[in-house]
Amino acid sequence: MDPELASPTAAVLVVGTELTSGLRPDTNGPNVARALEDAGYDVRSVTALPDDADAIASFLTRALPGHRLIVVTGGLGPTHDDVTREAAARALGRTLTCDEGVLRSLGPAVARHGCAEAGARVLRQAEIIDGARILMPTLGTAPGQVLEHEHGTLALLPGPPHEMGPMLGVLLDDRPGHASPRILRTIGHPESDIQLLVEGALAGSSGMAFTILASPGLVDVILRDGGAGETALDAAARAAAVALGDACYSTDGSTLAEAIMDAAERLGLRICTAESCTGGMVASALTDVAGSSAAFAGGVVAYADAVKSTVLGVSSATLEAHGAVSAETAIAMAEGARMRLGADIAVAITGIAGPTGGSAAKPVGTVWLAIATPADTHAERRMLPGDRDGVRIRATVAALGLLLRAVRPAAGPGVDV
Amino acid sequence: MDPELASPTAAVLVVGTELTSGLRPDTNGPNVARALEDAGYDVRSVTALPDDADAIASFLTRALPGHRLIVVTGGLGPTHDDVTREAAARALGRTLTCDEGVLRSLGPAVARHGCAEAGARVLRQAEIIDGARILMPTLGTAPGQVLEHEHGTLALLPGPPHEMGPMLGVLLDDRPGHASPRILRTIGHPESDIQLLVEGALAGSSGMAFTILASPGLVDVILRDGGAGETALDAAARAAAVALGDACYSTDGSTLAEAIMDAAERLGLRICTAESCTGGMVASALTDVAGSSAAFAGGVVAYADAVKSTVLGVSSATLEAHGAVSAETAIAMAEGARMRLGADIAVAITGIAGPTGGSAAKPVGTVWLAIATPADTHAERRMLPGDRDGVRIRATVAALGLLLRAVRPAAGPGVDV
Repeated sequence: MDPELASPTAAVLVVGTELTSGLRPDTNGPNVARALEDAGYDVRSVTALPDDADAIASFLTRALPGHRLIVVTGGLGPTHDDVTREAAARALGRTLTCDEGVLRSLGPAVARHGCAEAGARVLRQAEIIDGARILMPTLGTAPGQVLEHEHGTLALLPGPPHEMGPMLGVLLDDRPGHASPRILRTIGHPESDIQLLVEGALAGSSGMAFTILASPGLVDVILRDGGAGETALDAAARAAAVALGDACYSTDGSTLAEAIMDAAERLGLRICTAESCTGGMVASALTDVAGSSAAFAGGVVAYADAVKSTVLGVSSATLEAHGAVSAETAIAMAEGARMRLGADIAVAITGIAGPTGGSAAKPVGTVWLAIATPADTHAERRMLPGDRDGVRIRATVAALGLLLRAVRPAAGPGVDV
Repeated sequence: MDPELASPTAAVLVVGTELTSGLRPDTNGPNVARALEDAGYDVRSVTALPDDADAIASFLTRALPGHRLIVVTGGLGPTHDDVTREAAARALGRTLTCDEGVLRSLGPAVARHGCAEAGARVLRQAEIIDGARILMPTLGTAPGQVLEHEHGTLALLPGPPHEMGPMLGVLLDDRPGHASPRILRTIGHPESDIQLLVEGALAGSSGMAFTILASPGLVDVILRDGGAGETALDAAARAAAVALGDACYSTDGSTLAEAIMDAAERLGLRICTAESCTGGMVASALTDVAGSSAAFAGGVVAYADAVKSTVLGVSSATLEAHGAVSAETAIAMAEGARMRLGADIAVAITGIAGPTGGSAAKPVGTVWLAIATPADTHAERRMLPGDRDGVRIRATVAALGLLLRAVRPAAGPGVDV
């Protein structure tokens, strides 16, 4: 590709010893990277470094010449380990000065702390690198700093996502438009099958690049235009969706839960849940969707057998004869929830997530799911791999898959993209 | 510090365009980093690079001389974008050879694919770098490769966590013992207060380093020995826990949900939940704890008002007079759940998570919580900041905080560490 047409390069640096020591998963790195890609940058690396001024300065010194934009998050706060300001000033060969305007804006935060020592720390956040454009925080106290240098731009943003997000928006607002990637989401097929189907569909389209993202039970396909433009990207996305057929449940970026709630609301159907081993994860996924009250009635987490009986009406005879993890109990849970919660569709999940509770006949990972609709009720058994978390997540995805089929009997958006 | 006594340095590289484009949060980076730190390494960086052989080779060429151990995850699979093998071979100046033993082990996977093209791809995973120790997978198909070189060790591990984890365990099994960091977890106090308390407690102890990790409603303190040893670290942890007092709910690494379930089980108390805006998140957090069936009866997600009435017995008069988000409704939900689910303690949450549904009197973020015990029931109002996710997470933490207080009336483990 002509280097003039190539996307400008970017690097993301997230600062925090909690990140290099693995004590906390990093959400800023992926979020900033995605925003930069959507704004047309080619993100060449996402790096986490400890709260170590030498390590940060040395990384920046090496990275500054090779990237049009470098975004650093974290290390701008008031505590002793916030060293990003000093490190960036050193890499740029500039000085740090206390900014009067920022200082004044910190007044209320200093006053709020009501403690001489904590108040004094807050003031460190007024130290600004020479030449910086200051991004004032909307919610927190640490201002962002944007520095133009001979090779491009260096942006220092605070670590807390709710402070960083709006500043990143301001930083990227000036960028020209760019074809955002298209996302096709699939359920129920292995990664390798999805890859072959998409390769086949794109055989005729030049320039398209795609990435496959698999998570338990789900495979997403990310299509990028590689410079071919919006129209070509749309055509490629349409071809891929047709090839994927029923497996593809979303072409507009919506999640599985969003696809379910959207279809249910359009049909005027209300959903409810009856969960044992997933312990509320299915209800929680459905209510994660804004506006979910239109199509979600509620759910029962029937962990103890007594709750299965008293709240859902599963008979003791069923529980005794077949056990809590059985087709019969799953069906009774689904039908009981559907009647008692006054919903149109109920999904029930009962299984053995482990680490204990398994037997030779019903090992850890055995999960019975049932779906009850106005038309009928049926149950399916799944043998799910993984540890406790893995079984719970896979069981949640399986339950959402059953709900999708119930609200979208002729699934597959291949026809309407 | 004497360089001979310093921890050996390590770097973590996670490979995948989905990571640099932010399409998926990275869990391998933090998990590997934490395992390396626990094994005594000083992790100097965690880097994500795209599926780009040049970028990976150039990173490794630069990083190999400076780190005793480099762990790379991802890019060992069968698809076209799996380029870690080639890149590592190039950085080491070694060749790739097809390994007969690995090839034989892949036979079943090839056969399972039942498709000539996907089968052929699987075979790429048999390509091994000269001199590599091969780590055979227990579950998947991509073997790991461990390479000794003049400066240290380079380990290539597969990306899927369930395949990577066991191999990392094998890799680290030989490491000598090392003082793992101590974790003190707190609830209900701002980060800056916690920092001052811990600084005060550690004023007399030399060599100790600590990191503060804040998440909504919770602050964790991570103490490291900095070479001072287990006994000094224990003494420092004890001093910090005493200084933190009631705020500190865990000194043994247990989570808030684990602390609650553990205390409830010891007291023979059973917990249940009645959730509206959190939609199952509280139940899901409690059932995330292995063995939770001993102390968790179940829960109701009463999203629709009808479910609040029919399943929990909240009277229509209460709902009409005070609204679904009110002290009265929260109390009726908690008492209804406690009676109907046959539990000792019930927590109820009803609030407005947004983005819609707020009013001048009850803006988005208004959440009423109630806790019912054999002794009494009371309700608290919280005004929680953040978007829908933020409000739901903070409301979940607030509910867990009420449960903790109910099962550990004299909270504060300062006395028993």
